[in-house]
Amino acid sequence: MRERTGRRRRGGAAAAAIEAGPPKSPQQAQRRVRNPYRPIEILADDALDRIHDASITILEEIGVDFLSGEAREIAKTNGADVREGSERVRFDRALVMELIAKAPERVRLHARNPDHDLELGGDALAFCMVASTPNCSDLEGGRRRGNFKDYQDFLRLSQQLNICHLNGGYPVEPIDLPPSTRHLDALHALATLTDKPFHAYSLGRERIRDGIEIARIARGVDAQTLAREPSLFTIINTNSPLKLDIPMALGIIEMARAGQIVVITPFTLSGAMAPVTLAGALAQQNAEALAGIAFAQMVRPGAPCLYGGFTSNVDMKSGAPAFGTPEYTRAAQISGQLARRYRLPFRSSNVNASNAPDAQAAYESEMAVWGAVMGGCNMMMHALGWIEGGLCASFEKVIMDAEILQMIAEYLQPIEVSEATLGLDAIRDVGPGGHFFGTAHTLARYESAFYAPMLSDWRNFETWAEAGSVDATRRAHALYKQHLAEYEAPPMAAERREALDAFVAKRREEGGAPAD
Amino acid sequence: MRERTGRRRRGGAAAAAIEAGPPKSPQQAQRRVRNPYRPIEILADDALDRIHDASITILEEIGVDFLSGEAREIAKTNGADVREGSERVRFDRALVMELIAKAPERVRLHARNPDHDLELGGDALAFCMVASTPNCSDLEGGRRRGNFKDYQDFLRLSQQLNICHLNGGYPVEPIDLPPSTRHLDALHALATLTDKPFHAYSLGRERIRDGIEIARIARGVDAQTLAREPSLFTIINTNSPLKLDIPMALGIIEMARAGQIVVITPFTLSGAMAPVTLAGALAQQNAEALAGIAFAQMVRPGAPCLYGGFTSNVDMKSGAPAFGTPEYTRAAQISGQLARRYRLPFRSSNVNASNAPDAQAAYESEMAVWGAVMGGCNMMMHALGWIEGGLCASFEKVIMDAEILQMIAEYLQPIEVSEATLGLDAIRDVGPGGHFFGTAHTLARYESAFYAPMLSDWRNFETWAEAGSVDATRRAHALYKQHLAEYEAPPMAAERREALDAFVAKRREEGGAPAD
Repeated sequence: MRERTGRRRRGGAAAAAIEAGPPKSPQQAQRRVRNPYRPIEILADDALDRIHDASITILEEIGVDFLSGEAREIAKTNGADVREGSERVRFDRALVMELIAKAPERVRLHARNPDHDLELGGDALAFCMVASTPNCSDLEGGRRRGNFKDYQDFLRLSQQLNICHLNGGYPVEPIDLPPSTRHLDALHALATLTDKPFHAYSLGRERIRDGIEIARIARGVDAQTLAREPSLFTIINTNSPLKLDIPMALGIIEMARAGQIVVITPFTLSGAMAPVTLAGALAQQNAEALAGIAFAQMVRPGAPCLYGGFTSNVDMKSGAPAFGTPEYTRAAQISGQLARRYRLPFRSSNVNASNAPDAQAAYESEMAVWGAVMGGCNMMMHALGWIEGGLCASFEKVIMDAEILQMIAEYLQPIEVSEATLGLDAIRDVGPGGHFFGTAHTLARYESAFYAPMLSDWRNFETWAEAGSVDATRRAHALYKQHLAEYEAPPMAAERREALDAFVAKRREEGGAPAD
Repeated sequence: MRERTGRRRRGGAAAAAIEAGPPKSPQQAQRRVRNPYRPIEILADDALDRIHDASITILEEIGVDFLSGEAREIAKTNGADVREGSERVRFDRALVMELIAKAPERVRLHARNPDHDLELGGDALAFCMVASTPNCSDLEGGRRRGNFKDYQDFLRLSQQLNICHLNGGYPVEPIDLPPSTRHLDALHALATLTDKPFHAYSLGRERIRDGIEIARIARGVDAQTLAREPSLFTIINTNSPLKLDIPMALGIIEMARAGQIVVITPFTLSGAMAPVTLAGALAQQNAEALAGIAFAQMVRPGAPCLYGGFTSNVDMKSGAPAFGTPEYTRAAQISGQLARRYRLPFRSSNVNASNAPDAQAAYESEMAVWGAVMGGCNMMMHALGWIEGGLCASFEKVIMDAEILQMIAEYLQPIEVSEATLGLDAIRDVGPGGHFFGTAHTLARYESAFYAPMLSDWRNFETWAEAGSVDATRRAHALYKQHLAEYEAPPMAAERREALDAFVAKRREEGGAPAD
């Protein structure tokens, strides 16, 4: 792969090698990604209004079951219709809109390394490592249950790859760690192996409080600063249709109180947990998302929330969920329209249903990625490594996605149109029938003129065949290993590290979060 | 692959099988594709103006070399600046704009089967089989030089796949046919193995005239009707930078005179035949495209022309062309902006530089396809089967692209938002915590609710692994073979077929088009 290295090493490569030691794996430099284009609008305003109206009718007339008594109490106190002896919570139109309006339009997610702070909202776009898969795989070891070794390797890749901006949970579930203390080890690893923002699961009050405390210690700030500077996020999946379970409700309560970010993402699979029609599934998604966000605003007005869209469909023959389909893409883009209607940052995903990191994984992912980007996504979950509809994290897919996302980031860069770049003098000098290889205009620019790939192989067929006809998936395997070999843990001030270790040790002694 | 068959066969499958014989390979029904979305605008109006102005300056001050004396004579007669003893042709600003304005904004391309007539322009989008590759490959036979057997198989696939709307040349060059009569056999096959629109190469006056005559005979119309109803198109690649060779000039002359469609596509590789800057490469592309289209209007005012964009870049280390890159995608979308500025239909392409039909082929192609679609493409060349930067046509890639394009076509379908599709009654009936599998709302719609894939495998990992862990590329292999086995030649009226055979026999006796 050496001859495919990034643009940094073009020209003067020998000198650079002496200074910098062995060549690093190719990749683009770290950058913040901004999307300058107007999002695609799948629905006209009146159709979007009809979805909004239907979701408001759902909240007014049908309501949502809140399984937590504490949550129902908060809802009742804040004007929702909650009746004795029922879990049902109904919201009237004016209440919902008043609450939603309190959520900020954009929010800054802080990392322990400020270089990795992220804007969420507006034209900003952030890419998140795969999360929450029970299995992982690579070509060498095959498919296996999640474990702490692989978990840490995914975190190392999330740190190593510049195009990965944050972690969105556990890339793979470290099933070999005991459940009561797993979150302590997993969060400790997130806070030490990476210095990018991260996520804690809403799995009960103790775990989410531990997550908030670990994020605070890792940043070295007090609770007041943490509340002003969100440094942790949690994904709230409503239990579609129209239910919010106790751990999720407690997650909203604890995170909103602490000023941390809540991403409400109903998992509305059209044909299973939501109507078989996209319009119906989206009306239900929107009702659930609005209920969750309105509830967070009841807990703490101004609590930072993201609007998450995850509507896809099931294969009606097998019941298996499908991802990266035309339905998924349109649902994601309509979700973006809805999020912008409510002036909320929009969370989407990079998804596919392929059983291997192959061409299907690539083309289904591209449907999701282009759909998300053109739909105004601000935070792309599962952006690197997801396969099998979320049942597996693939090391090779991490690299494949890194290339896809790097290309998107470069595509979103503006193009300079000036006298210098129009190059009329060069065109005049070369004239009809000539070529531009040796011109001064070319020589002054060739080193950084074009995107340099990390995974794509542009050698001619003969050279590629002589080198063993290695396809993209097998090249991705070599590259992920190379990136792991080059990984270096980000520095952490000794006192923060000690405080973190001590907190985890103390909580472990206390038994972590015993199953209740 | 049987269990992945298309939606048509869902429910009532047994009855359908009795009526219809053995199950056909899964695919979506034939449809015309329309793109309802506003194209992405990479450049602001003022930057687009600067590219336009630079290209006009090129045409005014530098000019284009026309190698054909006949073409220079036409240019001179029609007001261009042509001087004795020079091949250089210069156009002033007013002349260019006056001529370009004569080209129609949209055009209908007629097929011998009117069901396959195509609109080119506006919001219409047509997908074209791979063209002009010297090699072809499949997993079984490997990579091989182009030959007539494979050529015919690609044509059969172009006929068989509903998402393929036309042929854009020879899918692979049938090198085993003698050069002087190759075009006769190749065009005869295009006119008989398919009933979709096709293309003839501009390789000298005799060949292009043969193409026009074969298109006329296949349609069973006279020359006057053919001139009113364009039934053939040709791609004109200018010889960048700024040259138009004799065969290409004669192609424009013959096709424009006969009222047939000319697609002007400069092959401006940034860093090689065009400036290393995208702005400069696009200014040069635009100058060459405007020169070709203006020249066609000199030959016959109102001659149907397409604006073709093919600017990409070379890898500056190896000189190899790169495709499906961020530069390529932005150049394509700016080309679309330019085409719309001149009110011309826009031709783009589905390209990649992968040496195999693997994940790289898929993700580079998706960059090109999404870029083209979001950039307002009307005719997508090489939409099915292109790999290796155009040096190879891949049978497996044809199927992979068919799936990608089917998904795009479905994505572009409108979504109904009505009382019925919002499904509030179903949501009310199911209530919190239920599911939608057996509801009347679901049962009434599930058969046609969602996109049914042709290549994607949505079975769970265990089932897929038990069935041999067949990846997308190998599944594509089986599918292309199955489609070939199911191919049936489209019917052709006996008198047309006889006239066609007789014409080809006569031209063969005359020696075809001997190399000159």
